Amino acid sequence: MHHTDGHAPELGVGMVGYAFMGQAHSQGWRTVSHVFDLPLRPVLAAICGREPSAVRAAADRHGWAAAETDWRDLVARDDVHLVDICTPGDSHAQIAIAALEAGKHVLCEKPLANSVAEAEAMAAAARAARSRGQVAMVGFNYRRVPAVTRARHLIAEGRLGTLRHVRVAYLQDWLVDPDVPLTWRLRRERAGSGALGDLGAHAVDLAQYLAGEPLLGVSALTETFVRQRPLPGHPAPSSPPAQVARGPVTVDDAAVFAGRLASGALVSVEASRMAAGRKNALRFEVSGELGSLAFDLERLNELLVHDHRAPGADSGFTRVVVTEPEHPYLQAWWPPGHALGYEHTFTHQARDLVTAIARGTEPSPSFADGLQVQRVLAAVQDSAARNAVYTPVPSGSTDPDRP
Amino acid sequence: MHHTDGHAPELGVGMVGYAFMGQAHSQGWRTVSHVFDLPLRPVLAAICGREPSAVRAAADRHGWAAAETDWRDLVARDDVHLVDICTPGDSHAQIAIAALEAGKHVLCEKPLANSVAEAEAMAAAARAARSRGQVAMVGFNYRRVPAVTRARHLIAEGRLGTLRHVRVAYLQDWLVDPDVPLTWRLRRERAGSGALGDLGAHAVDLAQYLAGEPLLGVSALTETFVRQRPLPGHPAPSSPPAQVARGPVTVDDAAVFAGRLASGALVSVEASRMAAGRKNALRFEVSGELGSLAFDLERLNELLVHDHRAPGADSGFTRVVVTEPEHPYLQAWWPPGHALGYEHTFTHQARDLVTAIARGTEPSPSFADGLQVQRVLAAVQDSAARNAVYTPVPSGSTDPDRP
Amino acid sequence: MHHTDGHAPELGVGMVGYAFMGQAHSQGWRTVSHVFDLPLRPVLAAICGREPSAVRAAADRHGWAAAETDWRDLVARDDVHLVDICTPGDSHAQIAIAALEAGKHVLCEKPLANSVAEAEAMAAAARAARSRGQVAMVGFNYRRVPAVTRARHLIAEGRLGTLRHVRVAYLQDWLVDPDVPLTWRLRRERAGSGALGDLGAHAVDLAQYLAGEPLLGVSALTETFVRQRPLPGHPAPSSPPAQVARGPVTVDDAAVFAGRLASGALVSVEASRMAAGRKNALRFEVSGELGSLAFDLERLNELLVHDHRAPGADSGFTRVVVTEPEHPYLQAWWPPGHALGYEHTFTHQARDLVTAIARGTEPSPSFADGLQVQRVLAAVQDSAARNAVYTPVPSGSTDPDRP
Amino acid sequence: MHHTDGHAPELGVGMVGYAFMGQAHSQGWRTVSHVFDLPLRPVLAAICGREPSAVRAAADRHGWAAAETDWRDLVARDDVHLVDICTPGDSHAQIAIAALEAGKHVLCEKPLANSVAEAEAMAAAARAARSRGQVAMVGFNYRRVPAVTRARHLIAEGRLGTLRHVRVAYLQDWLVDPDVPLTWRLRRERAGSGALGDLGAHAVDLAQYLAGEPLLGVSALTETFVRQRPLPGHPAPSSPPAQVARGPVTVDDAAVFAGRLASGALVSVEASRMAAGRKNALRFEVSGELGSLAFDLERLNELLVHDHRAPGADSGFTRVVVTEPEHPYLQAWWPPGHALGYEHTFTHQARDLVTAIARGTEPSPSFADGLQVQRVLAAVQDSAARNAVYTPVPSGSTDPDRP
Repeated sequence: MHHTDGHAPELGVGMVGYAFMGQAHSQGWRTVSHVFDLPLRPVLAAICGREPSAVRAAADRHGWAAAETDWRDLVARDDVHLVDICTPGDSHAQIAIAALEAGKHVLCEKPLANSVAEAEAMAAAARAARSRGQVAMVGFNYRRVPAVTRARHLIAEGRLGTLRHVRVAYLQDWLVDPDVPLTWRLRRERAGSGALGDLGAHAVDLAQYLAGEPLLGVSALTETFVRQRPLPGHPAPSSPPAQVARGPVTVDDAAVFAGRLASGALVSVEASRMAAGRKNALRFEVSGELGSLAFDLERLNELLVHDHRAPGADSGFTRVVVTEPEHPYLQAWWPPGHALGYEHTFTHQARDLVTAIARGTEPSPSFADGLQVQRVLAAVQDSAARNAVYTPVPSGSTDPDRP
Repeated sequence: MHHTDGHAPELGVGMVGYAFMGQAHSQGWRTVSHVFDLPLRPVLAAICGREPSAVRAAADRHGWAAAETDWRDLVARDDVHLVDICTPGDSHAQIAIAALEAGKHVLCEKPLANSVAEAEAMAAAARAARSRGQVAMVGFNYRRVPAVTRARHLIAEGRLGTLRHVRVAYLQDWLVDPDVPLTWRLRRERAGSGALGDLGAHAVDLAQYLAGEPLLGVSALTETFVRQRPLPGHPAPSSPPAQVARGPVTVDDAAVFAGRLASGALVSVEASRMAAGRKNALRFEVSGELGSLAFDLERLNELLVHDHRAPGADSGFTRVVVTEPEHPYLQAWWPPGHALGYEHTFTHQARDLVTAIARGTEPSPSFADGLQVQRVLAAVQDSAARNAVYTPVPSGSTDPDRP
Repeated sequence: MHHTDGHAPELGVGMVGYAFMGQAHSQGWRTVSHVFDLPLRPVLAAICGREPSAVRAAADRHGWAAAETDWRDLVARDDVHLVDICTPGDSHAQIAIAALEAGKHVLCEKPLANSVAEAEAMAAAARAARSRGQVAMVGFNYRRVPAVTRARHLIAEGRLGTLRHVRVAYLQDWLVDPDVPLTWRLRRERAGSGALGDLGAHAVDLAQYLAGEPLLGVSALTETFVRQRPLPGHPAPSSPPAQVARGPVTVDDAAVFAGRLASGALVSVEASRMAAGRKNALRFEVSGELGSLAFDLERLNELLVHDHRAPGADSGFTRVVVTEPEHPYLQAWWPPGHALGYEHTFTHQARDLVTAIARGTEPSPSFADGLQVQRVLAAVQDSAARNAVYTPVPSGSTDPDRP
Repeated sequence: MHHTDGHAPELGVGMVGYAFMGQAHSQGWRTVSHVFDLPLRPVLAAICGREPSAVRAAADRHGWAAAETDWRDLVARDDVHLVDICTPGDSHAQIAIAALEAGKHVLCEKPLANSVAEAEAMAAAARAARSRGQVAMVGFNYRRVPAVTRARHLIAEGRLGTLRHVRVAYLQDWLVDPDVPLTWRLRRERAGSGALGDLGAHAVDLAQYLAGEPLLGVSALTETFVRQRPLPGHPAPSSPPAQVARGPVTVDDAAVFAGRLASGALVSVEASRMAAGRKNALRFEVSGELGSLAFDLERLNELLVHDHRAPGADSGFTRVVVTEPEHPYLQAWWPPGHALGYEHTFTHQARDLVTAIARGTEPSPSFADGLQVQRVLAAVQDSAARNAVYTPVPSGSTDPDRP
């Protein structure tokens, strides 16, 4: 970190990848120090991509000072203290481990990896780096929607009592059209899995984050509804179907699974990219012996709260607009009722990561948390491959406080 | 049936049981011929219960001409042409089979029975009676919420195309309080199962009715969260806990299961009596390649309809208030926007049953349909007992048109 | 009233008119004694209409014992103790006054009359009859939606504190199509006014009922958007427009007005039959210094309740499903979460009227209440005719407890 | 403008005021060129406030290169090409006119001024500057919520046909507590008016923007519910009430008014800071002969669209999540379903203003539009002072295309 007179010391950020996630992370890094009081001031030091002209254009567009074409060069830069990994899952392990070994802090997009083995290696590297004062966080950004953070706080305070039900569904519909092409996200070797790893990973993380405890086991069904899709770069979908070259989809379009938490609560999770009409519907409903909470990312400023101890005649779900100064992150933003959006989760993520770095505290979610999610995803795939039989999730956590 | 001058012939109804369901059925029988043009006019001939003074009071209150204390006497009455069974599940088979053998039409509350064996015997009796012109219907009344019927019609017309997802949840919360007493509904020997048979039966019937095809198999978890409850008639819950005699709950509080339809669609079902804040939330969402539908019984006059072929900029879920004259059953009721309620399902059920009797057509849902639901419930219990392994639902349908 | 052994004495009802309102009232009279414990048992004695065969068919359909073709004969019948007036507004005064003078109780559909002069005569007749033990009620049935009654109770208990805002809108859309024919509802000489008297009367009654105080004055705009409509019985709308005979619409299509209550609260009211897409949207929102309430008749089982004293972080509108046994009228109906519908308001109206008759208490809303609404409607028309100038509502109430 | 090699030329922005609006505008200026392709690149050149240390801190926090303490010095800077005025209304005219005379482009927060006379002078200055190629925009940012812009486009395309109703309500609740202190916003000499100028100005602008035509006249009631409030800087509200020095509130707490558009549509508007539980509820519903639209700023990513030509059985309000690439401004942001927030309106405002400057086109809303809103607000105050009599809004527009 570089100290400048009268200001918070700088924290140089280097980002690998600049597609959707890179754009979103950039917005977070550019904004965070203008909104929050931070002990370190993030500086957009360098961005990395393979195509020289494209990465240069991305650097200009998104406000990064320098551009690199090899992630190893980015990791090696002295002005980069934190490596932010926004690439597809198959390169996460390699980059993250190298960055940690080079003494950098790391932020890695979710899912942590494409396999449990990779995730274990990453978690081990993070643990080793932790002893050197480095911090490694995985990017489950939806924990940082204020309504979601608020939900976690209410549960942690005991407002729901013992949990009975945790339901999470993450529904999108961009694969409904059978002519959507066969991109990397639909190939197992690049993406690891389909809706499961992309959407289900968020759902699993939220289920465990909200409940404050890990999934013990799962029983799962998965399905690929459209098994062949047009190869990218081949004749357009408007060509006669016979002329469109197609290839096999090797990941799931949807996954449905149930599970149990240590407290005995039943969990149900659904992830789909084929839920026509649902654009980004990450919903949860958590019920306990004292109350319930419900949320839908399509209305991200609202949390529905039911207090079961209220008199029956007054009882129901209260729609709390989560924009009050008492709500998480909101003190720094606008007056009550002035909505936040999707990208604010990345500003909040940046704030919390910078705070953890400055304080030397374990970030949440850590790589260990990301590994735990990976184990659940692997158990889901195992269960689905073995007739949905209930499949325990191995417990490897070394941190009893976390899922 | 008894013909009277210038009017539709009468259809004498005899009802067994007069608790919640008896009250609801009575309202349907009393109302139906004042609202719909019917080929037969139902007459509330006799009601049956074991306690003489109570059944006499119920007859007066609900408008029944006579009262009986033995269901065999009710079945034997000449003025009873249709036996309406509103008792707990353990007596359904005995009464229904006797009534069918006595030449009566039968309406039987759901679930059809407490076991597959009973349900098979009932379906066989119905099949035999069918050849004698008798009709036997099972009371899955929620098919007759106009928004639900409309949903079925839209799916049958192909408005959703090939189905991908069928999600049904039926959530109530009357068991959240651990001091709710151990009534017959919480004892396996009387009720067969818990949330599964009570709420899950509706959910399974709706999933199959809406899709127009049977569940092929299921993978299930069930749970009893509160395992001991106060015995009824013992010291009240306000007594010191130590003095309250408790007995074991022998049915499930909640069931979660996933399954597959023949078309390949994934099904997810949840039934719970422990979903704090949800009073009667029977919700479904069905997605296909061309659109989606969503419904919640707590807003029973509304159907949400998404047409995936609409231009993206205009696309979304349309909240249709299902009170137009073009909607099912609505021609007979009020002008647009004037809401119907829960009890109307029983009036519609009465209308459809009377129509089937007059026309001599197979009613929907038939006892065969009720048997099919029973097989799914049994498969759910089997799966839950065997580590959630995917358990096929035996196919015994002799009617290829029906679930 | 006629006493029969062991039962509540009978109360003979005679109804004049059998269109939409007649059908709805019939359902209420048929149902009420099967649901509520009543001191008198209403009997559907006779129905009256001008066309002999039609009124006979209506009697059969709706369950009335006898049919009359002259309302004077109906009023004269010994078996009629209560005259229920469901005709257009221009005959209300004549029938109601005659019935009261003949010693009958009266229920009169809203609006009470087509003019203040008629309403004053009716209120005077009711006052005179009151001293003879007779009861006269006006049919503002929406007061008896349980969520609305609950709202009134909360306000009367002081849960909102001093009121600041009362907003009521009643929006329908059946006149959007310019080819809807020119029925009696669109002619001033029959209907008195248009959306104002039909929908606005309900809105005004609710504003005053909820607040518990009268409107002091109003400032209003009204509009007739479609000024010529096809004459009924002439060539159908599908004819070439030139061939369709049209006549002038002499009532308003919509009215917008603001006013003040004695407490200082601002009131805003809108009534329209041209609000495309709104079928029966009677909505209110009432705000006070301690909280707010909101309601929409299209979701009539829900009341939104905001408690402004709750901590900011937990604050919001609670969606109360008004189906708990503690809620008004609900003890007699179904378990929690089982929805009521539009027609239940007529059952509740019948219950409350029968109770007032048996107890000899002033009914609510009384003819005096109906007169007060009529005065507000007249002030609205005056204001609209005089450039919207604020127009006081004359106070003529002799009953300080009521609006 | 300053050209730099290979990039868009720079546009130096100087901002006066740095409270809530200054913070929001800063976020817009910082973000806009990272998201949109712009012909000019805004640079945060200088910020101005009266307190030297505070303005220096604000400059650092919000990313401004320099700080000034006299707005005249800011206007005089060569590196400032655009003056962005975020001060209370009483200084708008002076600063805006000086900036325009100094050859700068101007963005001025709403309401344009505290009086019609000031607004006329500003509009005249803008007209004169326009001939010199300068651009002057008023900050009605809610036009740039994508769902609102979309609504305007649908109306302009004729999707609603001739309009019948325009209802707008802007409800907040921060004055419900009678101990909120007497800040500048509650003093007529600083703020011009209360809820009317603050919230009502937005409502009036939206009504006219959506309809595409001006209000012809209004009839209004206003009210100040809490007439004395604690003076700021005096003993805190927790002091005994007797010891709290209070002063008179000289602006309205709420305003309710109705009006007419040239097309004949009825308009109703309500603005309140006393609507308990409503934090930032800017809602509209617009109905025409072919359809309707509805919106609520508390759910700013949603537009409800009703097409009255759809078959009745399919008809209703479609909830469009306005995050598709085809929607206004969305191409530049995130994938479908990823919500935008309040602050995005300022980024969109910056984009549109920069585009107008580069193209030399008239911005929307122009100072002439701001003047028109001011005339409506003045007519509202006149009407409220004269017994709500319908008060014409003078037409001074020189631009027939605009409200």
